[in-house]
Amino acid sequence: MTKTISVAAVQQANTSNSQDNFNHSCQQIVRAAEQGAQLVVLQELHKSLYFCQQEDTDQFDLAETIPGPSTEALSALASKHNIVIVASLFEKRATGLYHNTAVVIDSDGSIAGKYRKMHIPDDPGFYEKFYFTPGDIGFEPIDTSIGRLGVLVCWDQWFPEAARLMAMAGAEILIYPTAIGWDLADNKAEQQRQLDAWLISQRAHAVANGVPVISVNRTGFEADPKATEPSHGIQFWGNSFIAGPQGEILAQADQDSELVLSAVLDMERSEQIRRIWPYLRDRRIDHYQDLTKLYRD
Amino acid sequence: MTKTISVAAVQQANTSNSQDNFNHSCQQIVRAAEQGAQLVVLQELHKSLYFCQQEDTDQFDLAETIPGPSTEALSALASKHNIVIVASLFEKRATGLYHNTAVVIDSDGSIAGKYRKMHIPDDPGFYEKFYFTPGDIGFEPIDTSIGRLGVLVCWDQWFPEAARLMAMAGAEILIYPTAIGWDLADNKAEQQRQLDAWLISQRAHAVANGVPVISVNRTGFEADPKATEPSHGIQFWGNSFIAGPQGEILAQADQDSELVLSAVLDMERSEQIRRIWPYLRDRRIDHYQDLTKLYRD
Repeated sequence: MTKTISVAAVQQANTSNSQDNFNHSCQQIVRAAEQGAQLVVLQELHKSLYFCQQEDTDQFDLAETIPGPSTEALSALASKHNIVIVASLFEKRATGLYHNTAVVIDSDGSIAGKYRKMHIPDDPGFYEKFYFTPGDIGFEPIDTSIGRLGVLVCWDQWFPEAARLMAMAGAEILIYPTAIGWDLADNKAEQQRQLDAWLISQRAHAVANGVPVISVNRTGFEADPKATEPSHGIQFWGNSFIAGPQGEILAQADQDSELVLSAVLDMERSEQIRRIWPYLRDRRIDHYQDLTKLYRD
Repeated sequence: MTKTISVAAVQQANTSNSQDNFNHSCQQIVRAAEQGAQLVVLQELHKSLYFCQQEDTDQFDLAETIPGPSTEALSALASKHNIVIVASLFEKRATGLYHNTAVVIDSDGSIAGKYRKMHIPDDPGFYEKFYFTPGDIGFEPIDTSIGRLGVLVCWDQWFPEAARLMAMAGAEILIYPTAIGWDLADNKAEQQRQLDAWLISQRAHAVANGVPVISVNRTGFEADPKATEPSHGIQFWGNSFIAGPQGEILAQADQDSELVLSAVLDMERSEQIRRIWPYLRDRRIDHYQDLTKLYRD
């Protein structure tokens, strides 16, 4: 592990033109690399609109294999610019078997590993259980030339168990590609509570585990394809952020900007923080058995 | 469960006179009851100075049995004012066997149950492993006339596992009597990071579990009895707070004030929040087995 790592997150607004979206992501990766980034994280399902607003079998056309055309393009970028890339793809594993998958491309262009989203949401406007089979790889961090990455995806960010299992397997950074936004029918106070909850939950994973967190969310408004009223859809709330191992914000985007967010992680901090806040020392594993139940009834 | 619960937290600064400290707590309980509180939570080890700044066998004189003189006095107050009280006592269980124990007194004056602190810290200035045997009751919520209370203590607040286990056993409110503060040798930026981490970690337990949180911390400076330099000791940072099930702050004290902090909890909110944020539905218990290990190596 190097002592510091320069990291970047690409927050963007997408259109129905997947090639345009992907070109934009690639341009931002190059820009991040030129600014010195060693690791670039893209947002969840960064190639397309957030198609899970509806249940539509035609959307499976968006899926691709891993390796496949996207990983090939990203591998070329990674090796050319000597940069580690975390991408988020709609994976076609077999006919009728799809996953929401994060892929890590190492700086030599090889695929370092993948993570298949374990916790799958299903709410009005977020019909992910229709598209994605829950991951079967488990919570396994991915080794790269810059360190061991705990890559999770979006809905996983609400589950302290996922962050803990990654940290317990030696993850040095927690990473969350994300697609989350507001239902504009909710009032401003509710919207603020939701954004705050999203921020503090992930910052708390940093604190509980003594590791930095990179969370990358999309921005822009995407209309509900089925909606009869124009206001329906999702206002993705941006606010991508990079936090240190005490949950302290190192960099944070606003709601609307398309940008490359960057920060330098001091990887020695985790060593210091876990000495002054030694939570791993004191876990009461003799009383944690019921965590493997759905409920204690 | 009633639809709303009026709750209060007593934040106070202590002296070496335990009887004075306890009298003050009792006066504040009466005041809270007169203001309509149905539940009052006291801070951790509210009878004494935070004696764990040193390892001193004489301090065991402060311990008492449960039931004992403190629970008797609190039971009389609870039944007289029809109020549920969460107290935090230095429990003498047997000669040479002590716990850091929270006791819940129901509104009829009976002892509803107790919780023995499960996670025990040990850091410079917080030598708790010398005094307290880690609890053996486990993470069991306590039923009272106003609902099922998930009572935990201080260091437990850094462990998402503890909050989760309480919520999975039906806890309707998470409650943390606390004694935490700054080492004044740390600079202001570090102090702010520590306070922020403490706030967001507990607010995140509310979010992850869809329940309100009451956290009660002491205030005031307590000198290190062994110190040779006058600046040494702990500046307890107050900031007791009450949060709703989205982690939203309902009431928060400042750093220095001795006060009764109060809020009204709308218990219907947890039902609504767990419908829109259904984390309990989606936990991947088929991949959580390693949570019962210390580390995944």
